[in-house]
Amino acid sequence: MASDRIYGEIPGYPPGSTFKNRDELAGSGVHRPNQAGICGGKDGAESIVVSGGYVDDEDYGTEVVYTGQGGNDPATKRQIADQQLTRGNLGLARSQIDGNPVRVVRGAGGDPKYSPKFGLRYDGLFRVVDHWRDTGKDGFQIWRYRLVTLDNADPPPVVPGAAGEPAARTEATIQRLVRSTAVANRVKRLHGYQCQACGIQLATPAGPYAEAAHIRALGKPHNGPDVASNVLCLCPNDHLLFDTGAIYVDADGAVRQSGTAAELGELRLVAGHLVDWAQLAYHREHHKP
Amino acid sequence: MASDRIYGEIPGYPPGSTFKNRDELAGSGVHRPNQAGICGGKDGAESIVVSGGYVDDEDYGTEVVYTGQGGNDPATKRQIADQQLTRGNLGLARSQIDGNPVRVVRGAGGDPKYSPKFGLRYDGLFRVVDHWRDTGKDGFQIWRYRLVTLDNADPPPVVPGAAGEPAARTEATIQRLVRSTAVANRVKRLHGYQCQACGIQLATPAGPYAEAAHIRALGKPHNGPDVASNVLCLCPNDHLLFDTGAIYVDADGAVRQSGTAAELGELRLVAGHLVDWAQLAYHREHHKP
Repeated sequence: MASDRIYGEIPGYPPGSTFKNRDELAGSGVHRPNQAGICGGKDGAESIVVSGGYVDDEDYGTEVVYTGQGGNDPATKRQIADQQLTRGNLGLARSQIDGNPVRVVRGAGGDPKYSPKFGLRYDGLFRVVDHWRDTGKDGFQIWRYRLVTLDNADPPPVVPGAAGEPAARTEATIQRLVRSTAVANRVKRLHGYQCQACGIQLATPAGPYAEAAHIRALGKPHNGPDVASNVLCLCPNDHLLFDTGAIYVDADGAVRQSGTAAELGELRLVAGHLVDWAQLAYHREHHKP
Repeated sequence: MASDRIYGEIPGYPPGSTFKNRDELAGSGVHRPNQAGICGGKDGAESIVVSGGYVDDEDYGTEVVYTGQGGNDPATKRQIADQQLTRGNLGLARSQIDGNPVRVVRGAGGDPKYSPKFGLRYDGLFRVVDHWRDTGKDGFQIWRYRLVTLDNADPPPVVPGAAGEPAARTEATIQRLVRSTAVANRVKRLHGYQCQACGIQLATPAGPYAEAAHIRALGKPHNGPDVASNVLCLCPNDHLLFDTGAIYVDADGAVRQSGTAAELGELRLVAGHLVDWAQLAYHREHHKP
């Protein structure tokens, strides 16, 4: 399934696009299942529908507190059993730790303040910022997710020629974000989420976790390219140490500590992920004190 | 010096405040030194003046690429020696890894597009997002910093009663940010930047690094308090594991792995930092799968 997922916007369907019913929505590709509220699995979730199907949902417009799937009676919309961190529920947790955007569709039946009167409406990309277990209003265990609109996302780095332009949401920003997470996800998968510096693989209930560290930073003035060869798969600790120049990769491939030059090990390499040694030299030149 | 630093805005001097000269500026407390461009030391930097004193400065309005101090001839403004990562230069790097805001003052003499025609103007809080070593236009080693305005900061979590309000910059937002980093900094200092879960202390060229992890998250719906007893000092890896519920602190004070319940060690405690055990119970209840 991993390769079938489409994160980000679907061409031809900008935010505000409306759909008569779930069939028309499914046909557009914006949210593919005909019934399920979450389009996702253990590799991640790409879209959700918020339509008042769960009593514990909360809608604040730019933020949504969303209930996971399962354990509810579609007829009464009440919870009748505990939810598990599996399938779509696991997918939303995975999208949180991968930083993948989730398409949010609102349907009639949701909070009247933010929902369409009829049919369904695509409301843009959100990111999952939190997930947790709770006891729902009906007394059963539910999984909950806080999603925040990407309209408030950090502006992208200033690019040459664009200095001083306002950091408004643009198609280009969203496309850049999605392209960037696609590169990051590919590198992390190739390494099995194992840190290239220390070898640790952090295990979380949502699956293994690692970070994609740009060797030469994006944006002015470094202008590093957003390609796999300019990315390392690192654990958060080594990401911090690498970015601050506390560790670096030497010309012989050794990971060394700045100051002492002590060798901490070899940079781990895997087939399919070519690392650009010129960018590692740039990092040494600019970040090693 | 650490206890003397004032991060954030100075009461009575909102962004846009103007000053006739450096003496008037120093008297206000917005930027205390009479000559130096950076007010800071190894514990952090609180303010800078951007006034065209260094040939390598770049001003993009909402972003500034700032040159560290030292090695230049005030008469010609040219670099005549290498800069070191010490004093104010170290302070700006430290403010980056601590997440402390920096007051930015622009003076006549800076880029005419963004600078006042006469005197000096306080232009608000920026955060340091990057620092690196470079060879300046005059051929000497300089330290460079990228600062980005906090006007584009992530909006704070939605608070009860404020649902749906726009996430515009407000005094309250800034005050909350500064109060929050003050709590975080205090906890990290008490622990000597040592992780309470695994004991590691990450050493960087800007000094030791740790993160302040809220046990019960701030904002809706958790509404955890932003106080030291609701904060743990963790390394980035354990912060991620804690937030995803991969590890938790049990009622007996043991740090355990979710799923296996294997004990990873005791939660490290120090005098002066009381941890709220009720919040640890809340974390177990809501984040352990």
